[in-house]
Formats: sequence, structure tokens, C-alpha cells
Amino acid sequence: MGIVLGANHYGKAETRLFRIVRDDRRHVVRDLNVSTALTGDFTAAHLVGDQAHVLPTDSQKNTVFAFARSVGIAQIEDFALALARHFVDDVAPVTSAEVRIEEFGWERISDHDHAFRKAGAEVRTTCVTADSRDAQIVSGARDLVLLKSTGSEFADFLVDDYTTLPPTHDRVLATSLTATWSYSATAVERGVDWAAAYDAVRGALLDRFANVHSLALQQSLWEMGKAALEAQPDLTSIELVAPNIHHVAVDLSPFGLDNPGEVFHVTDRPYGLIEVTVQRDGDD
Amino acid sequence: MGIVLGANHYGKAETRLFRIVRDDRRHVVRDLNVSTALTGDFTAAHLVGDQAHVLPTDSQKNTVFAFARSVGIAQIEDFALALARHFVDDVAPVTSAEVRIEEFGWERISDHDHAFRKAGAEVRTTCVTADSRDAQIVSGARDLVLLKSTGSEFADFLVDDYTTLPPTHDRVLATSLTATWSYSATAVERGVDWAAAYDAVRGALLDRFANVHSLALQQSLWEMGKAALEAQPDLTSIELVAPNIHHVAVDLSPFGLDNPGEVFHVTDRPYGLIEVTVQRDGDD
Amino acid sequence: MGIVLGANHYGKAETRLFRIVRDDRRHVVRDLNVSTALTGDFTAAHLVGDQAHVLPTDSQKNTVFAFARSVGIAQIEDFALALARHFVDDVAPVTSAEVRIEEFGWERISDHDHAFRKAGAEVRTTCVTADSRDAQIVSGARDLVLLKSTGSEFADFLVDDYTTLPPTHDRVLATSLTATWSYSATAVERGVDWAAAYDAVRGALLDRFANVHSLALQQSLWEMGKAALEAQPDLTSIELVAPNIHHVAVDLSPFGLDNPGEVFHVTDRPYGLIEVTVQRDGDD
Amino acid sequence: MGIVLGANHYGKAETRLFRIVRDDRRHVVRDLNVSTALTGDFTAAHLVGDQAHVLPTDSQKNTVFAFARSVGIAQIEDFALALARHFVDDVAPVTSAEVRIEEFGWERISDHDHAFRKAGAEVRTTCVTADSRDAQIVSGARDLVLLKSTGSEFADFLVDDYTTLPPTHDRVLATSLTATWSYSATAVERGVDWAAAYDAVRGALLDRFANVHSLALQQSLWEMGKAALEAQPDLTSIELVAPNIHHVAVDLSPFGLDNPGEVFHVTDRPYGLIEVTVQRDGDD
Repeated sequence: MGIVLGANHYGKAETRLFRIVRDDRRHVVRDLNVSTALTGDFTAAHLVGDQAHVLPTDSQKNTVFAFARSVGIAQIEDFALALARHFVDDVAPVTSAEVRIEEFGWERISDHDHAFRKAGAEVRTTCVTADSRDAQIVSGARDLVLLKSTGSEFADFLVDDYTTLPPTHDRVLATSLTATWSYSATAVERGVDWAAAYDAVRGALLDRFANVHSLALQQSLWEMGKAALEAQPDLTSIELVAPNIHHVAVDLSPFGLDNPGEVFHVTDRPYGLIEVTVQRDGDD
Repeated sequence: MGIVLGANHYGKAETRLFRIVRDDRRHVVRDLNVSTALTGDFTAAHLVGDQAHVLPTDSQKNTVFAFARSVGIAQIEDFALALARHFVDDVAPVTSAEVRIEEFGWERISDHDHAFRKAGAEVRTTCVTADSRDAQIVSGARDLVLLKSTGSEFADFLVDDYTTLPPTHDRVLATSLTATWSYSATAVERGVDWAAAYDAVRGALLDRFANVHSLALQQSLWEMGKAALEAQPDLTSIELVAPNIHHVAVDLSPFGLDNPGEVFHVTDRPYGLIEVTVQRDGDD
Repeated sequence: MGIVLGANHYGKAETRLFRIVRDDRRHVVRDLNVSTALTGDFTAAHLVGDQAHVLPTDSQKNTVFAFARSVGIAQIEDFALALARHFVDDVAPVTSAEVRIEEFGWERISDHDHAFRKAGAEVRTTCVTADSRDAQIVSGARDLVLLKSTGSEFADFLVDDYTTLPPTHDRVLATSLTATWSYSATAVERGVDWAAAYDAVRGALLDRFANVHSLALQQSLWEMGKAALEAQPDLTSIELVAPNIHHVAVDLSPFGLDNPGEVFHVTDRPYGLIEVTVQRDGDD
Repeated sequence: MGIVLGANHYGKAETRLFRIVRDDRRHVVRDLNVSTALTGDFTAAHLVGDQAHVLPTDSQKNTVFAFARSVGIAQIEDFALALARHFVDDVAPVTSAEVRIEEFGWERISDHDHAFRKAGAEVRTTCVTADSRDAQIVSGARDLVLLKSTGSEFADFLVDDYTTLPPTHDRVLATSLTATWSYSATAVERGVDWAAAYDAVRGALLDRFANVHSLALQQSLWEMGKAALEAQPDLTSIELVAPNIHHVAVDLSPFGLDNPGEVFHVTDRPYGLIEVTVQRDGDD
């Protein structure tokens, strides 16, 4: 049984692109982290070091900067799609391309025309994969740090020989959410108002996190995912990855104090980690 | 010439305290990182391992949690002051105590009573040092990430044999600001509306960053510091530490494109680093 | 078309376990980061918050600590396998379990019996997945930071409209390698000397990185992967993820100096990123 | 009382320099992170944005690269000294300069001539400050992660109302040490074998950490610092900053298991933090 080359791809990761739209005195700024990866016939590069099929990652980086000028950045989905299609269409050995983009938000300082302050830690993301026929778009948000100071329970769980956790009917529920959602093929073909879709999904996630009385983080996530799909018919599925950031009530009784759900120790590790996909029936 | 023990102190760093104020249905949450350090006569601990004078750092952590319940957290300056004075007054070998606090902000989700979303990366800080007579309070902000997309120049600088940088009259100016300001002894004694002072200083810093046409980051920082002292008479000085986060205009001419200040590469390292103190005349 | 629950699992991530083997005066220490994730019928937890099937992640953490005492840690593969099988066999709703472990190395200080110094940044890893019938084991290494100061070329590559990179026949080649390799089903069933296998694979990777004259990072990786499979018949495939950490020769000519491959600027971002799988023929 | 400019300096932080010495086939590599900061008369830059006295930080970076070629890097202390003196001597407005360098170690792969593997996390450091008359050199090491699996106690400590910690006569002692030591003025003037001094100090620190039976981390640090000064007469003082990385013995009794000092939970935060200076009598 011989040894052969398996799946492989390569690209330029984390090109940090800042784009100013200065059509008038009121500037708009876009702050992106762009990663490209190309798949194709690169066997010779691996087996004998022949680079004839290999577009340098440096050229990929240049393309990102050039497209930021020539194509512009409407929404990150559009920009990623333009880049991915370019690599597939214009670089012969490339059969498919993946473009990942993270966007960092900025807010105006006192509605100033050209002075900005970095907004929250929240990051908007997209991952576009294209080949010569079609494209998939998986967009998302990460570092959405959410917390409920009450309205969360954890009780009536399975108890085994290693279970010491007491049940609770009032705890702090906190997470740093990563959400990624897939657009349907027809939506990608037709085009979507990506920014509006982002806002709608994000709004649904926040609303359900806040307003569902949570018997389990799993239940909150299911309700959040379901609401996102209901809010946005163009989505086929949404995946939620949610660390459970433990806030442990401190036992103050040694100091003659009670602690009616007021003083907590936030721990770093370990943390619970819940991953769940919510999808339309019939999809996988 | 013998070898002797020099300056020393010890404490508990980074106790992560979360406090819910649940006086009514509308919860308030406070999210702190508290570090304590004690100075005193700990010579025996060092020289012969005699711990009789050493209050465990574990006890210091317990004190933080207990005080969060018994004293509460009005503003981080009040809380740090209470802790520092306790260590000095109630723990015999301690002659001075330093309490550092970082506060992370949370915003309500759609004005919800008990659901929150972590606010921006910006962190409010204080460092309180107390001995048996008085206390110093140095408060601040860090991770204030600011950017101007125009209105910044860098020209007519000193040119030596190693200078290749061209002058520019329109560049991106970006920084991740750390500001720390000292309150006067009388202000500490009298008490200050710490939250209002924080807002006033922060507001002055942002306003001057945005509105000063900058010939140098140094000039912006001077104007920012000056405005902060003018806005807040209780301050004796303010120190600004400002990395210059370089946004380098990309040369797109190899691709037949111009770049009229629109496409930039954000670099991680190296970065300029400017540190400046602005103070009232007569102070040091 | 309704909305349904898709794939889901949950567990406890990053339990930091330190184990001392103190069978005699000469201690052995093991420093692990353990993450567990369970798959099974957790529909009710999501849909109605019914936790009857949910073993708390806290119990999973307890199990990790208890097994560290009762089972012990021969090699991380054995420990992960014991944990994974326990969750599948002893926790009724669980149909499969994944246990990921990172191991951090320690070296003795001057061959001392119980004093240690943390070894390099390199981390040994395993990921064991088990269901009621069998188990897969994917082990690996990460943060293997490697560099060649010569013996690396990059030339004769594909040139498109966005290519400005000059070819080079002598460059610095540097990477921070992540390698993961899969053991065959028969090897898992029969058992493997996991530590010896780790050393053999690691040795093959380092040897080929050092001794292959590299026409492309892809070529080095292929040779490294091939050598690993040759050295260790129990492997079915190996995946290498290799950022290309760019060392850019600095143009010193403005200062009247040449630079015959001696002075380089190390950049953080962007970086090339090469991912390649090498496998036995007939496998996927 | 007016508002005036206080202390200020500026420079280029974290220039990542990689230097290959290729005098023969057997290459030597040096991997540095260099930060420069200049002090002088920069009042006009702050008050009116006049840069005539300001050498760009970009030029400082260029100088680092150029000196790496023209002067070379004997030891980081020599290199920092050359840079600092250059800025003071050759850049008119500069009255003093500070150059900080971190050096990352590399080891040969199987004694190869030009293939290397990054050594442990440990970093060697120096900070050189020079004015027109003399220079101070403070060198050090950081990220020296050390652990004793026994031979450490913590008992007979001060107990107050907030103390719940039980005393222990056998615990894990672990730290990530940062050490910085000052060379005497005569040593700086005369020159020192910096590499040998580094090895001697580091060796003394490790030896005492390992071999002192520790009644307190403070005691270990004192013995370590004392041994360093004894080993190296050129030092006037040494400062040790030592987080106490807590390894908490896990209570396994709920699972019917004992835990004779074998199973520990490593916590991230909070951590103890001990800072101590050991110095020669008569110095400050």
C-alpha cells in the first residue's frame, strides 16, 4: 500500500485590510481580516517542488488589496464572493477557493465625519466557498458575550457516581456566542441584503437569549436558533457554539454573611461547551 | 558588603468578581478584576520562612468577595479604598496596601431587566494606594481604540542617515489609548463623584482626539491631556500611553490602480509608542 | 418545511489536570488539559429543557479528576480512551464520546527528584472518539516551531496580474507546525506504544524538515508526512497545518549596506497557510 | 496654576529582528524583539506639532536593522548599548535613550548546520538606558516556569476573620518567574561577559528553587536572589516577580477515593503574586 497526497490547500491568512470610503466629507471605514485558500491541482508542488501551478500567497494578498480598491466592499459577503470567483475563474489551476472575512466594527465619535471609536468585541464573519459552478455562503458573528443575571435554572439532570453539583433554580447564565448560518443556494444565487440578514439573525438571537426563561443552555440555544431561522427564510441552518462561562456563587457563610445571588466568582477554565445545529426539516 | 532584603510586597492578583445588585426586578451588574498587594514587615517570611506576619493571599481574595457583599461596590474607587484601608487598619503587619481594579462594562439587551450584553473592549481602571495616614487614587481607562481617517499629518521631522519615511499631510491616525489620571490629595479626602469624573475625562479625551487637526500624535495627546485637566479640576496630572497603530497606504500602482487614501494595510508590529504626562504647573 | 434540531453535543472543555506519580522519591509529573464532549439523545433538553438525559459538565470534570487517581495516566491516548469508553458504557443516554487532551512537557532541573522546569512550547495532543463498538484515535503535536536559515527556495511559480513577488533561491523557511495523525483501526484495537509512536513521528517530521532541500513548503510537508507514515506503519494518514512565518530580508541599501541574507524582519500577519494530508493509498 | 508638559518619551516598540550569522556553513541565528524610546526636548512637538526635533520611529526601526548588519549582535546587552549610545550621540535633541531587547532561543535540530527548533518559552531580556555620561544595564529572564512537586509548605500564617485556608506541609509550588538584575556602574564601564553572567544567574535561581525546602515562596525567592548576587559580583540587585500558580488538590472523597498529593486542579486566576528585591547592603 503506497503513500499518496491527500486533500490539500494553501493560501494567505489574516490580511489586515482597512478601507476608507471618502466619497464626501463624511468618511465610512471598513476594517477587515481576510484569509484566502485555494484548492486545485498542486500535486507537482508537493511531490517535486514544481511551483508552476502555485500562485504565491503574496499575490493573493495583493489581490485582496487591489479588489478593495477596484471592486470595493459593499458587504463582506459580496467582497468574499468576488475574490473567490476571481481565483476560480482567472487562475487556471484553481478549482475552488475559500475566502474567510472577519469584520470589526467602528462607531463615530460624537457623530464626527472622520473620527471613530472601535465598537464592541463582537465580530461579523463570513466564509465563502466557490467553485466553477456555484458558491456556498456561511456567515456569522462571534464574541457576542451575553449574560442573564436571573431567569436561568439547571435542575433534574442525570446523576451518576461522579455527580456532586447541586441543582439550582436561579443561576447566572453567561456565554461568548459564536454563531454561523448557511444561506440557501437560491438565496446565494438571487442575492441577499446581507447586512439586513445579519441584523435580523443577531436580533433574534439576542431577543431569545434575553426573553426565554432558561431551563438549560441547550434550551436557550434551540430557541435562539429556531427564532433566527424563522426571522430569516434564506437560512437553511444555524450552528451555535456556546461556552458556558461559569459564575459560581461564593459561600460567604464563613464570614457571617449570606449570599442571596449577589456575589459570584467568574472562572476561566474549565467551562461547559455546548454546540448545536438548528436546521430546516429535510436538510442535513 | 552584605546582601539584604530590599523592597517587597505580595498579594492576590486578578480575583474575578461579579456582583449583581438585585434590589428590585431591574438588576444592576458589576464585573470586576481585583488585585491586592500588601507592604509591611515581611522580613521573617523571606529570611527564615516564618509566616506569622503573612496574611494568606487566599484570605485577601476572600476579603474581596466578602466586602462585595458587606460594603458593596458604589464606584471602583470607593471599593478599592475600602479594601485598602481595611488591610492597613485591620491587619497589623501591613503598613500600606495597593488595590487595583479593572471594570468591564455591560449594556442591557433591549432595556431588559436582567439580560445583558458585554459592552466594548474599553476598560475602566483604578489603583488605590493607602497607608495609615492617607491614600492616593490613580484612575484610568484602557483599550480605548481610536482612529481618524483624515486630519492627521506627519511632516517636517528630523531626518538622519537612517530616515527613509516620506512626509505626509494626510494619514490615518490610530491608537489604543491607555490613560491614567491622579486625583489631588484634597479631592481624595473630600471625595469625588468618580463616575462623573470618569465620564468627563473620557469625554475630553475623545473630543480632542476627534477635533484637533493633528500635526503629530504627540500634539493630539498634549491637547487631550490638557483638556482632561481643564475639564476636571480634581486631577493633578494625566498620563497617556499611546501606541501608534500604523495603517500603511498600499501601493496599488503595479496593478494599474491609484490609491487616494482608501486602501491600507494594518500592521501589528512594530508600532510607534508615545508616552506623555500632562500636569498642573508646580506638580511633579 | 419545519425547523428541527440537528447535530449537537456538549461537554466540559479545558479541565486543567496536574498529576504527580509519587511511587518513590523520584516524582513523575503529568500536566494535561482535558476536554470531553458527549453525543446522544439530548432532544428533550433542547426542546423543552428536560435535563433527565444530561450528565452535568461538572460531573464530567469530576470524572476526569477521579480517573486520574483510579485509572492513572499511562499515555494520554490510554487515558482518553478510558474516559471515552466510560461515558459511552456507563452513562445511558450517551452514544458517543470525544475526549481531547493536550499534554505540556516538563523537564527535571539538574536531574532533581521533584523539581521541574517547563519544557518548550511544543504540545502533544490526542483526540479519541468512541462509540459502543469502536474507537478512533487521532494524535498529534502542535506549536513545533521550526526554521531553516538556508536550503529553501521559492521560484518558478505562477505569475498573474497581481504578482509582484520576486523569485528567490535562498530564503528563510519557518513554521509553527501542527501535525495530527490517525491510527488504523487494527492498531487501536491491538494497542500501540503511544509514546514511542509519538517520538518516531516527531523525529521523522523534524528530520525531513531539516534535511530536505526545500523548493516549496508544500514539498517539505509532503516529505515530512511521507516519512512519518513510513516510520510508523500504524498510521493511516497525517495532516500537517503549517503557517509560513515570513522572514523578509531588509533592504539596507538606503544606508549604504548590503544584506547578504543576514538581516530579516519577522512579520506577524498576514502569513501563508499550507494544509496537506498525506495518506496510505486506498484510504480517504 | 497652569497646565504644563511633564515627562515624555517616544519610540518604536517591538521591531522583530532575525539575524543570521553565516560566516561559514554552520549558521548561527539570533531572534530579537527590539524596542527603542527616546527622551529629549520634544516640547514643540507636543505644544505646536513642530516635528523638527522628532526623529521618526520609522528611522529608529531602520537603525535597528542597519546596526544588526553593521555592528552585529554580540550579546543583546552590547547591541542595546550600541543603539542607545548612537541615539544619544548622533541625534542632537536626544538626551537619553532606552533600548529594550527580548531574545528568543533556538536549538539546532540534530546538530544541523542550518535547521533549528525554537527552544523553550523562556526569554532573555535586557534594558539599557544611556545618556551622554553613562549607561545602566538591567538584564533578565522571563517565562521561566518552575515547579516543585513536593518540598514546599505553607503554614503558621497570620489568620484573620477572612481566613479559611488550611495550613499545609506538602504542596505543589509553581511559578512563572520574571527576574531582572542590575549591573553595577563599574561592571558596565568595564564590560561583562553577558552570556556567562546570564547563565550564572539563571543557574543560581534554578538551583535554589529546586534545592531549598520552601516554607514560603518568599523564602525561596530570597534564597534565589541571594544566590544570584553571590554567584555574580557584578550585580547590585535582583528583582524577582513570581506569580504563585495554584495547584489545588482535588477532594476525591465523594467518589470513594483518597488523594495523597497526586491529583491537582491548576487554576488560572486569581493567583498569588510575590515581588521582592534582593540587593547589596548600602544600595537602594
